[in-house]
Amino acid sequence: MKNLINVGVIGFGYWGPNIVRNFMGIKGVSVQSICDRDAGASQKAKTLYRHVYVSRDHKSILEAKAIDVVAVVTPVSTHFELAKRALENGKHVFIEKPFTQTMKEAETLIRLAEKNRLKIMVDHVFLFTGAVRKIKELLNKNALGDLYYYDSLRASLGLFRQDVNVIWDLAAHDFSIIDYAINNKPRAISAQGVDHMGRGRENIAYITIYFDNTLITHISVNWLSPVKVRTTLIGGQKKMLVWDDLQSDEKIKVYDKGVRVKDKEGRYRILVDYRSGDMWSPRVDPTEALKVELEYFVECILRNKTPINDGKAGLRVVRMLAVTDRSLRQEGKVIKL
Amino acid sequence: MKNLINVGVIGFGYWGPNIVRNFMGIKGVSVQSICDRDAGASQKAKTLYRHVYVSRDHKSILEAKAIDVVAVVTPVSTHFELAKRALENGKHVFIEKPFTQTMKEAETLIRLAEKNRLKIMVDHVFLFTGAVRKIKELLNKNALGDLYYYDSLRASLGLFRQDVNVIWDLAAHDFSIIDYAINNKPRAISAQGVDHMGRGRENIAYITIYFDNTLITHISVNWLSPVKVRTTLIGGQKKMLVWDDLQSDEKIKVYDKGVRVKDKEGRYRILVDYRSGDMWSPRVDPTEALKVELEYFVECILRNKTPINDGKAGLRVVRMLAVTDRSLRQEGKVIKL
Amino acid sequence: MKNLINVGVIGFGYWGPNIVRNFMGIKGVSVQSICDRDAGASQKAKTLYRHVYVSRDHKSILEAKAIDVVAVVTPVSTHFELAKRALENGKHVFIEKPFTQTMKEAETLIRLAEKNRLKIMVDHVFLFTGAVRKIKELLNKNALGDLYYYDSLRASLGLFRQDVNVIWDLAAHDFSIIDYAINNKPRAISAQGVDHMGRGRENIAYITIYFDNTLITHISVNWLSPVKVRTTLIGGQKKMLVWDDLQSDEKIKVYDKGVRVKDKEGRYRILVDYRSGDMWSPRVDPTEALKVELEYFVECILRNKTPINDGKAGLRVVRMLAVTDRSLRQEGKVIKL
Amino acid sequence: MKNLINVGVIGFGYWGPNIVRNFMGIKGVSVQSICDRDAGASQKAKTLYRHVYVSRDHKSILEAKAIDVVAVVTPVSTHFELAKRALENGKHVFIEKPFTQTMKEAETLIRLAEKNRLKIMVDHVFLFTGAVRKIKELLNKNALGDLYYYDSLRASLGLFRQDVNVIWDLAAHDFSIIDYAINNKPRAISAQGVDHMGRGRENIAYITIYFDNTLITHISVNWLSPVKVRTTLIGGQKKMLVWDDLQSDEKIKVYDKGVRVKDKEGRYRILVDYRSGDMWSPRVDPTEALKVELEYFVECILRNKTPINDGKAGLRVVRMLAVTDRSLRQEGKVIKL
Repeated sequence: MKNLINVGVIGFGYWGPNIVRNFMGIKGVSVQSICDRDAGASQKAKTLYRHVYVSRDHKSILEAKAIDVVAVVTPVSTHFELAKRALENGKHVFIEKPFTQTMKEAETLIRLAEKNRLKIMVDHVFLFTGAVRKIKELLNKNALGDLYYYDSLRASLGLFRQDVNVIWDLAAHDFSIIDYAINNKPRAISAQGVDHMGRGRENIAYITIYFDNTLITHISVNWLSPVKVRTTLIGGQKKMLVWDDLQSDEKIKVYDKGVRVKDKEGRYRILVDYRSGDMWSPRVDPTEALKVELEYFVECILRNKTPINDGKAGLRVVRMLAVTDRSLRQEGKVIKL
Repeated sequence: MKNLINVGVIGFGYWGPNIVRNFMGIKGVSVQSICDRDAGASQKAKTLYRHVYVSRDHKSILEAKAIDVVAVVTPVSTHFELAKRALENGKHVFIEKPFTQTMKEAETLIRLAEKNRLKIMVDHVFLFTGAVRKIKELLNKNALGDLYYYDSLRASLGLFRQDVNVIWDLAAHDFSIIDYAINNKPRAISAQGVDHMGRGRENIAYITIYFDNTLITHISVNWLSPVKVRTTLIGGQKKMLVWDDLQSDEKIKVYDKGVRVKDKEGRYRILVDYRSGDMWSPRVDPTEALKVELEYFVECILRNKTPINDGKAGLRVVRMLAVTDRSLRQEGKVIKL
Repeated sequence: MKNLINVGVIGFGYWGPNIVRNFMGIKGVSVQSICDRDAGASQKAKTLYRHVYVSRDHKSILEAKAIDVVAVVTPVSTHFELAKRALENGKHVFIEKPFTQTMKEAETLIRLAEKNRLKIMVDHVFLFTGAVRKIKELLNKNALGDLYYYDSLRASLGLFRQDVNVIWDLAAHDFSIIDYAINNKPRAISAQGVDHMGRGRENIAYITIYFDNTLITHISVNWLSPVKVRTTLIGGQKKMLVWDDLQSDEKIKVYDKGVRVKDKEGRYRILVDYRSGDMWSPRVDPTEALKVELEYFVECILRNKTPINDGKAGLRVVRMLAVTDRSLRQEGKVIKL
Repeated sequence: MKNLINVGVIGFGYWGPNIVRNFMGIKGVSVQSICDRDAGASQKAKTLYRHVYVSRDHKSILEAKAIDVVAVVTPVSTHFELAKRALENGKHVFIEKPFTQTMKEAETLIRLAEKNRLKIMVDHVFLFTGAVRKIKELLNKNALGDLYYYDSLRASLGLFRQDVNVIWDLAAHDFSIIDYAINNKPRAISAQGVDHMGRGRENIAYITIYFDNTLITHISVNWLSPVKVRTTLIGGQKKMLVWDDLQSDEKIKVYDKGVRVKDKEGRYRILVDYRSGDMWSPRVDPTEALKVELEYFVECILRNKTPINDGKAGLRVVRMLAVTDRSLRQEGKVIKL
């Protein structure tokens, strides 16, 4: 096993520069080349990184012998073709979420990677935030008890993606978090949404995911909000948790609150027995999630480990997205996963 | 028309004391009697108001000649019977929301009141808050432009009502606000919900109301939240508004923000043209809403005016609640209003 | 000792109604009479409490044989005379803060109460809030370690008292809290302030209280702030605490943060070794402080206990106020207590 | 006048990298060399900027003919020597705040720059934030009316500077803002403070600045706070302003609130007549302040303009710092400026 991993990055738009910067900070990794077909973006890459080979043609990366890893940081419509060629050329693939446009594409890439003994990592970057890692840790030790609900709100103004709707953009984050952190299989999905701009892409949507038990998850995503919101409530039988990702400190608060049904009958407005105790805000690792994720990717390659966010995780999220879109086309009909 | 209005209040549980206190503060109104079949509640009324006749039998109110107005502050299951008898005995009726359990009951009461020339006021108390009055004023002068969405979140812990689910308890407020403030007819409703306590009453629910145009309204209600939330976002083509009812000041913020579709094609993640300007938080009248409402009720009686929150408004809200329940029983099927 | 305590309340302005309402809620206590020389205030008392004797003359209370306790809820300039006559007539005294206008007055009242075996309780109401009781509990068990600082900010707009400056109004609260909760004697005081309205009463002031060790306390009070603030930071060697009294929940947050000096020399901007751990927000008893305080007063009378907020505590606070005023007149000169 | 300005940066610790990055983004500016005597820092510069000359010896910058501008980003104790040599060698100087350790040093540098027709810019970076520019704009048009007070709180945990106390670190920002934005000359200063770490450097301090009229400014700085606070209240006769620099949006809120003394005499707790109107939060330019400042510096050089934050502004702030330190040594004695 060699010591130096050479990386090529395709796409230097909004997110690409972060990928490049973080790969550059990892010992034993060298970013060899960057490409972006847009003249402005490639020029920007050249100015920032004078010693890196920059082009507007991804062939220079996909076909370069010296490249070990290809990072695909382009619109989802181009994912399949680029990842396929990278895998065919023997390169590990780090790829933006959502993994692919269809489940079939995802399955093809997974098979190709397996055949060529290559790694795929889908950039489910939230899994590597201190907050989600802490939530996973708490859920793993059943700190909240049986889960009642997961309720997430992601809202902001300004970025309308042309290639996908608000669900593929924002709800995809929650899908990956639910897939990772909740030890329970989603059963079915119902979704409502609306496209105010008349572009064929929903900019507001509401998604309900059903599980086999009484756990309910609801995701509200909105590209048209005057205020930015990134808040998730997770309610359990023992405790409840609020995750506000916009807080710089105290991102996670765990409440010693709960309810218990009492048999007592009485007046019409009766309290279900509830507890109200202390609140606790655990320290959350502030390390940039992308740094943690890319270091983990390098480790998976060097030690031949399967990433938690591998192609199969990517596929599971694409399946949820596809089913959500189908429910949306049928007025919110509940569709099995 | 005589000068003094005599009031009898049936129900002295959670909300009744507020009704009594506010009626007492109105010039020309006298609270003559209070009743509550619960011994503790009626004893409490006696201690607080030594000069008022207090009993455990509502007959003393429904059949008292001297009573002009009956306030029905009891569980919804008792509303119809009590209101019917009050109207039959020639008394104006102030009644808690939701008006009745069924549309048919509501229609019967409306007809009875019309026949006997009596007023019904349904306690849609939010319509009389400074915040909703300000929102109504802004929407009336089209300050937000064409409406895109109304998105409301009401969550808290502790009060589980036995007689109704979380929708009839909390979403009923939004239904009354939407009915009052939005100059547009709701077309259909879809609702999801779950009953974690196994009592046959949903404690979490998500409701989407569709309109003829692209306006979408969504209401999220939760009796199991560790934190109290009362936040409504209203997005319009020109401006957007956030109403946070838990703020003591700055309950309403109006954002000079908006979007406009540009035809320009380009890279995959393009900004729809958006504005980001100043924010403005208008002063909101802090007068207790119930005080404003009851004074208005007295004025409606004295001047023979039809309240904005009359029986018909009550019926419209009951219709929305009934359709919501039907959608809930059919896995969120979209049901026409 | 008899079972029923009869109370007379002098003063029914801003705070008096709360005293009356809370005394009425205590078993074994009867509010016998209320007086206020203002016609409007006494009329208001009559309307609310038809069964209580209400007058405009405090003689009716001070000289009534049946009265056991006199509550003095009047401007500080009248405290001494009213309390003195009450004590002379054998009545226990509950009195608003600040206790008196001068230390000499306070000392006279204390002696008189001792001679007549009567109780004085000064209404240092903050000592009975759940928040201050929790802070006292934490400091008692040295949960924060050696104290570094107590830093308090009380600001709001609107109430300008005519009889006292902002220090006697707002900082008096902090003085009573510091006197009660901090196990350490204040040594000296320095104060700055300004009177923008030209009425001879400071409306903004900054007070520093020195102790024998390195503990420093600072109090900022402001009657001219556009926003209401009630925030106190308490820093200790082991932990630090933030008390935000305007929060309905999470009034107190305890931070597992601290610093330690390292000997390491190096570059100019070096980190003193610091810890950043979890935050913990203990549940705080939400019972109305005045209810807790008055029940405690009744208990002190019945069981012949000395209140924590007795006349001597009142005197200590008056001493701090007097010294603060003296420093203020001398451009913030540090004056020994 | 030539088109390209060549810059040398001395110091690549905490702030230096920001200076380099921002200079690099300005058209017509070239960062020619960077030096830092610390091996780690100079190595870091080399890795990031492979095409820039990096050394550990500042001679390479101070004596290089090709260098036009020297940025001094080092501890204040080294400022005078480095700036003097740069000016003697004909270079413009951009220098960290505080400008110098003593007023005499500042005066020497100002004279030297004047003699050699060179520019000095002191990095009073807050003057170039959108927030302070908006405040200056509002004060310039007298939007708040006559000023009553400026009250600032800067608190946080973690960075203890070895070379200066908390005043020279944090209060220096407020001094530069007050010097710039308030059209009024400070008259005298009083300061209290404490050094809990026993290092001879105060880590908590309270400063009051007096003006000729009733305007009072107060600055509270704290290196030992569990929470970060950056809040300034500015109260005027017509309006009041809150600047919370930690908000990402709504940094500035202007309140239509005020007071007016009424002559009416009456009960002891009387309202001074006050207004409570709307609140307005103007949009604040989010451009990075250092970018705005450095572009302005280049413009001052090219067009031979005197910067608002020139050596004389630096001197005025150093004078305030020196007087503050003197008051601190004399128990808060009020000392004239």
